[in-house]
Amino acid sequence: MIDENLEKKRHSLSHIMAAAIKELYPEAEFAIGPVVENGFYYDIDFAETKVSEDDLKTIEKKMKHLLKNNAKMEMSEKSIDEAIKEEEKNKAIYKKELLDDLKEEGEKQVSYYEIYGFKDLCRGPHIEETKEIEAGSFSLQKIAGAYWRGDETNKMLTRIYGLAFNTKAELESHLKFLKEAEKRDHRKIGKEQELFMIDPMVGLGLAMWQPKGALLWRIMEEFWYKEHLRGGYELVRTPHIGSRKLWETSGHWGFYSDSMYPTIEVGQTLKAAQEGQEVDKESKEEYLLKPMNCPFHVMLYNNKPRSYRDLPVRWAETGTVYRYEKHGELSGLTRVRGFTQDDAHIICTKEMVKDELKRVARFIAFIFESFGFREYKVYLSLRDPKNKEKYAGNDEGWDFTQKVLKEVADEENLDYTVEEGEAAFYGPKLDYKIKDCLGREWQCSTLQFDFNLPERFDMTFVNDKGEKERPYMLHRALFGSFERFIGVLIEHYEGAFPVWLSPTQVKIISVGEAHREYCEKLADEFRAQDIRVEVDSEDETVSSKIRKATSEKAPYMLVVGDKEMGGSVLAVRDRGQRESREIEKEEFFKEIEEKVKLKQ
Amino acid sequence: MIDENLEKKRHSLSHIMAAAIKELYPEAEFAIGPVVENGFYYDIDFAETKVSEDDLKTIEKKMKHLLKNNAKMEMSEKSIDEAIKEEEKNKAIYKKELLDDLKEEGEKQVSYYEIYGFKDLCRGPHIEETKEIEAGSFSLQKIAGAYWRGDETNKMLTRIYGLAFNTKAELESHLKFLKEAEKRDHRKIGKEQELFMIDPMVGLGLAMWQPKGALLWRIMEEFWYKEHLRGGYELVRTPHIGSRKLWETSGHWGFYSDSMYPTIEVGQTLKAAQEGQEVDKESKEEYLLKPMNCPFHVMLYNNKPRSYRDLPVRWAETGTVYRYEKHGELSGLTRVRGFTQDDAHIICTKEMVKDELKRVARFIAFIFESFGFREYKVYLSLRDPKNKEKYAGNDEGWDFTQKVLKEVADEENLDYTVEEGEAAFYGPKLDYKIKDCLGREWQCSTLQFDFNLPERFDMTFVNDKGEKERPYMLHRALFGSFERFIGVLIEHYEGAFPVWLSPTQVKIISVGEAHREYCEKLADEFRAQDIRVEVDSEDETVSSKIRKATSEKAPYMLVVGDKEMGGSVLAVRDRGQRESREIEKEEFFKEIEEKVKLKQ
Repeated sequence: MIDENLEKKRHSLSHIMAAAIKELYPEAEFAIGPVVENGFYYDIDFAETKVSEDDLKTIEKKMKHLLKNNAKMEMSEKSIDEAIKEEEKNKAIYKKELLDDLKEEGEKQVSYYEIYGFKDLCRGPHIEETKEIEAGSFSLQKIAGAYWRGDETNKMLTRIYGLAFNTKAELESHLKFLKEAEKRDHRKIGKEQELFMIDPMVGLGLAMWQPKGALLWRIMEEFWYKEHLRGGYELVRTPHIGSRKLWETSGHWGFYSDSMYPTIEVGQTLKAAQEGQEVDKESKEEYLLKPMNCPFHVMLYNNKPRSYRDLPVRWAETGTVYRYEKHGELSGLTRVRGFTQDDAHIICTKEMVKDELKRVARFIAFIFESFGFREYKVYLSLRDPKNKEKYAGNDEGWDFTQKVLKEVADEENLDYTVEEGEAAFYGPKLDYKIKDCLGREWQCSTLQFDFNLPERFDMTFVNDKGEKERPYMLHRALFGSFERFIGVLIEHYEGAFPVWLSPTQVKIISVGEAHREYCEKLADEFRAQDIRVEVDSEDETVSSKIRKATSEKAPYMLVVGDKEMGGSVLAVRDRGQRESREIEKEEFFKEIEEKVKLKQ
Repeated sequence: MIDENLEKKRHSLSHIMAAAIKELYPEAEFAIGPVVENGFYYDIDFAETKVSEDDLKTIEKKMKHLLKNNAKMEMSEKSIDEAIKEEEKNKAIYKKELLDDLKEEGEKQVSYYEIYGFKDLCRGPHIEETKEIEAGSFSLQKIAGAYWRGDETNKMLTRIYGLAFNTKAELESHLKFLKEAEKRDHRKIGKEQELFMIDPMVGLGLAMWQPKGALLWRIMEEFWYKEHLRGGYELVRTPHIGSRKLWETSGHWGFYSDSMYPTIEVGQTLKAAQEGQEVDKESKEEYLLKPMNCPFHVMLYNNKPRSYRDLPVRWAETGTVYRYEKHGELSGLTRVRGFTQDDAHIICTKEMVKDELKRVARFIAFIFESFGFREYKVYLSLRDPKNKEKYAGNDEGWDFTQKVLKEVADEENLDYTVEEGEAAFYGPKLDYKIKDCLGREWQCSTLQFDFNLPERFDMTFVNDKGEKERPYMLHRALFGSFERFIGVLIEHYEGAFPVWLSPTQVKIISVGEAHREYCEKLADEFRAQDIRVEVDSEDETVSSKIRKATSEKAPYMLVVGDKEMGGSVLAVRDRGQRESREIEKEEFFKEIEEKVKLKQ
């Protein structure tokens, strides 16, 4: 539900900010000032003046000063030609350009709104009077650069963002939420805990995993493989590139190529060309980085004739795929250009479909439970019944799979939302979404039917009557991708991972030089129990080492001084506690083992 | 040592084969007929006649028939112009082309050899008389297509290969070797056991791993990770593509680009271009598939200042890299275009170098021992002392690392060969090579110093005097690549993997329908013990199921009929045995557990 009144307030605040700026910076020229989520912004050309975040306070103060006097938003109209002439005279180049466009679109008349002496081209609507705005309900937030009309060949303008709510209390609650979100931000924690890094020299959207992050990944991966083998899956493994012919056959190069990287032409390397060497013609082929693992799994299936007795086939792969995302859409680990899907394809007969779906739904529930996600949203995406022709497959297949997906969602007690017309062109699906620290929903688990690939690759099996039949094919991912799931996981735990997942489970701190050797010996005892331990015996003060360890958030900390040397009793400080507790070493080993077993 | 006499025999046999063919196929035109390893071939244009491997017997018979009469190889000389005129008259188009080239190269005179009425342009040398060739010492082997002069725009000729040795006994021993090698061929076993497949639709040199192969990989990978964590390594994880800038900085795009795939230009996809969409200019960048993992690890190292206390850094990654290999050089899993290096980089101070090298040498010995490789060759590659300028780094670094490599090789009792001038341009190295079924040596483990990347990326650490210092950097791989190592491993074990590695450890066979359920129950008991088990309860005869299981080479087979149902005693048939032995179930579990522990 859009709060129209609040939208008006935000819009008017954008004008009021412009009025304040015009007083402070008479040379400023204004471009556009729309309402956005939680507030507003205005793009401004400050000419030679450099305006920074430090100046926001002055501007905000000026706005508050203006608002002390109630004022009316005055609307007036002009013919478009008159408006153009006037803005030209004012040298308001951005407004003039906007008006030129409006004229071209056939507008005859335009409206202006004036507040505190600042008259601005605007469609409205606005509030009636500024007294409607509660004192303290808005705040200027930050400054960013923005190209005029989003085109980098144009001038870079200064965009000033403001937050605005109906009440001061609401603003304060939102600021608190932002602060909390910042603490949980996986990019921030990832950097602090040295989990992963992204460097433009390597490539944007391409995460590199530092030792602790790679260890966390490995722990999750081992758990994932073990549970898949237990769950009756087999593993497969496929390359990261495939011939263009493969992707043409699958249809990806036709329908999906705007998310794919351009072709790599093999046959002659740059150096060979430079040196005028002969082309190895026999090898000249075009390859594409894989955006999905599916066609490879289909090739494995089609490698030999299959019988109904060979089904279901359940093939799992943690396959790294590459998809093109625009620069501006990249976001930490949650929106990247290369990611590792925890993929599987299930190929089965119609009779097996429902049972297989239930197995997957339960597997997803088990995974979410294991990683402590108790809140998530489920969406059942069906085809648009009015546009049947835009989908692969036939009515029978769609009716059956949509029905059975719904049955499974009901029988497994999923709290789901039906979204008609949201199915992929190749089949209906069930998506599971988890929220990040800012409340944004990210799709993680997914369960999708595919009518496209079985047709395109002519997949078949011989049924119990000896006839060839088309199998049903299911794509599914549990994490979605390791990258995104870890990103959401970091925010979920605020970097304080449970014992079974923590890259470092126990941090041992030596009080002084004299305790260093004992700490190492103790660490080896932990390692022999398969407990992940780290020793800090740097030449620093104990309190600084404790502070560091606290910020690293290992579940347990052991400070070893004279008192703790020898003996079998440990002084364990639990994460978040200021006091330590005493526990027998063997007991402590058991405690950790138990927690790992219970995924705590 | 080349046996010059044998070379002559092989060469003469090529002429004798041509003489036989000329009698059988008077329209045949001859191109070239050189000596190759183990024999000879001749490329022939049979015009419209189709000659197949079935015809080889007839040709061989004809050769033997000719050889019944001893004949002399008659050499004669001609002026090149006379020779050209004559071959032109004979319509011997290939010989004419060869002569034209010789003339262009400045030859004035050419020689001909005649045997059994076949006169052929040839430099020689040849045997004197055909009686030098022992009866039964040669054999025609196979037929292949070959483009004239290796250019696919030319006509495809028929290449007939022959094997030839000094004695009949030597030929027979070689044929036996080939037969044995064929049985061990990893490509053949890989197909039979459904371990991996290569399909041109996906791409040559790009292996796809079927469930059993992927499971074998996973077993090896888990072992590998566990041993690396135990050995003080940390894991890292990096993407498969990196920006062109990264590869320019590392120098790969300059020195190594003929092994790299061409650039992928990101920023606008094909579809976007076709639809005239605007380019996302901000994102326009060039990427390259990684041929090595090193620059990424360097980026991780350079992420923050390092102190001598942080060293040694030991970072391990199973990273899939892509390198361009010519079509004709590809070979199963041993020479591919995409492979997963079991890579690690060790970055340390000069004082740590020797200890680190010893650790790696022992790690390699442990790995070879674990996989049953007792025979391998070690090569110590040093720089060419006469061409010091073509290497990265300085004299001090080279002298030190070469000396310490030699010391370590000596102290670890490696039986190594020194190869001067065989070092990489970036540093000296120690390579470990294993032989495949055909006796070809494949480089697996490697230990290399790198003076190049630390300089190019300006890697440093702060030493104990507070000064910046350049660290030493070691690349190392134990398997070399998973692909190649598995290829050699398959040939080593002839597909009969030891218990700890077998994708299927126990194969259970049901005698009939009545025993199916019991077999499944039994299998679950094995699974609960983490034993990899497979049940064959297909509707086939027991003997056909046993035959199939025997060819699959699982270490253990259990045939379950009435007699074997219930009870706690199992009838176990060991691989290679025709009789089964009785053993208590719990005892058998222990036996397998023990073998896995001992890597048997």
